[in-house]
Amino acid sequence: MQLVECVPNFSEGRRPEVVAAIRDAAAAVPGVTVLDLHADATHNRMVLTFVGGPDAVVEAAFRCVQQAARLIDMTEQQGEHPRIGATDVIPFVPVSGIDMDACVALANRLGERIGSELQIPVYLYSRAARRPERVRLPDVRRGQFEGLREAIETDADLAPDFGPARMGTAGATAVGARPFLVAYNVNLGTSDLSLAKRIAKGIRESSGGLKAVQALGMATDDPGVVQVSMNLLDTSVTPMHVVYETVRDQAAEAGVEVIESELVGLLPLDALVSTARAYIKAGQLESSQIVEARLLQSLGTAEPPPNA
Amino acid sequence: MQLVECVPNFSEGRRPEVVAAIRDAAAAVPGVTVLDLHADATHNRMVLTFVGGPDAVVEAAFRCVQQAARLIDMTEQQGEHPRIGATDVIPFVPVSGIDMDACVALANRLGERIGSELQIPVYLYSRAARRPERVRLPDVRRGQFEGLREAIETDADLAPDFGPARMGTAGATAVGARPFLVAYNVNLGTSDLSLAKRIAKGIRESSGGLKAVQALGMATDDPGVVQVSMNLLDTSVTPMHVVYETVRDQAAEAGVEVIESELVGLLPLDALVSTARAYIKAGQLESSQIVEARLLQSLGTAEPPPNA
Repeated sequence: MQLVECVPNFSEGRRPEVVAAIRDAAAAVPGVTVLDLHADATHNRMVLTFVGGPDAVVEAAFRCVQQAARLIDMTEQQGEHPRIGATDVIPFVPVSGIDMDACVALANRLGERIGSELQIPVYLYSRAARRPERVRLPDVRRGQFEGLREAIETDADLAPDFGPARMGTAGATAVGARPFLVAYNVNLGTSDLSLAKRIAKGIRESSGGLKAVQALGMATDDPGVVQVSMNLLDTSVTPMHVVYETVRDQAAEAGVEVIESELVGLLPLDALVSTARAYIKAGQLESSQIVEARLLQSLGTAEPPPNA
Repeated sequence: MQLVECVPNFSEGRRPEVVAAIRDAAAAVPGVTVLDLHADATHNRMVLTFVGGPDAVVEAAFRCVQQAARLIDMTEQQGEHPRIGATDVIPFVPVSGIDMDACVALANRLGERIGSELQIPVYLYSRAARRPERVRLPDVRRGQFEGLREAIETDADLAPDFGPARMGTAGATAVGARPFLVAYNVNLGTSDLSLAKRIAKGIRESSGGLKAVQALGMATDDPGVVQVSMNLLDTSVTPMHVVYETVRDQAAEAGVEVIESELVGLLPLDALVSTARAYIKAGQLESSQIVEARLLQSLGTAEPPPNA
């Protein structure tokens, strides 16, 4: 079964009726399941997480964008979080049975519809980016709604990938594809914060460490425990167990033990299967051997097709 | 979400229309998903695997027994596999969100219905057994249909747990609960079959090894590889990784390496989570953090209740 996660961010975290309308627009699409909704009043932003088959998630994302454009006026919206539009950003994330290229294709399909049917400028970002300067979201968001709105009609570098070079009250939207992000912490049995900071610096990609790993050393509530806090940006490049072993071995060199590791939030089954494969050398183990995945597959085939 | 596996065995593996009718009886129950069907003409037996919530699997099992009683006449049935009835044996297996005691309760509920509504004698076995001599299935099956039919009316030791002490054409049925059975092999890089046999003997419970582990040493197609072939009867007692490590360490003592390990067939998510927990010390990792499990949970709550 093909399973895609979609995590759109909208510039509304204060009006509950708008938050609900956007969520309901996604939930109404057959084959789509809303897994999480987080609305923040200070940021004036909501993050919706839903999963489903490729056609279903594209349809659900489109309907959300449509609702957000109708209900959010960016010329009046204010909040602490940087944003360029009512729907600020939409990433497609492969979960199972689908690869990154296919998710890039979904981003293109959605971007094309948003541009042509809703007349909203769309920038393709992350793995879907067509220009190197659009890979990173902060670069796409530079100037925010207000700055982009002024410059988009005259600056050729700001020409959108889809839709008009002109912004209405819905602003612009970044659409892309990226790997599943895993939030992963390893706790060390020491009060020496400098050790956590040193290990973090050693393993993060930005200082030449492990690919697709961001890391910070931090204190915890327990004075005898420090933490290496990480984002694993692509567990197919650097799997969890490699990160764990690297932190463990570097701590051991300083005579410090790992107390425990923590996975924060959700994790795709494939990441768990990789860990087991590595540990017990079960190279041929497949996600489809897991009872729950098999059941999901059976249920998936029985689902009605999305009315896209 | 509560998920129970049910793996009933029926004494029919030759007439495709009977096999299909029994499968369809289970599949027709809302909330039940058939995962596997295996029919064997030589054994004249079929093994059906379905999963669902507790109420749904009991209802599905009952309907299968009803169909089997209607379509299979044990006074004419012949096959190589030992059997006592049209429905020979029905185990309930906890997969997620439900424990063994609850599955024993399901076995009692089903047994009571089979006995009173279908007038078929029922023996509770395995974890559901009420007498020590009924724990093991071969003991329950002693004498088979023919022998049991003769003795049941006069031998007080053969009094069923439910239903009449009298057998009709449907025979008798063993109903019980047991843990998920995991078929697990570890391949060793040596041609020394005696090493595989020695390790197998050392780790199997019957010779004082690991609890709930059955093991045999065998040759493989590759003359340079021998196998420790195992059934893990309860991975909550002895998890996969403990078995792996034990085999690995014993092989290492003989200077032999593990080539790979193989999981044959299905595996509950919880068993995989335990492995990852042990490996990366992620003690708080829960199955519900896996995207696919979360999705299943969401879909589960949307399901119609079984019309039991």
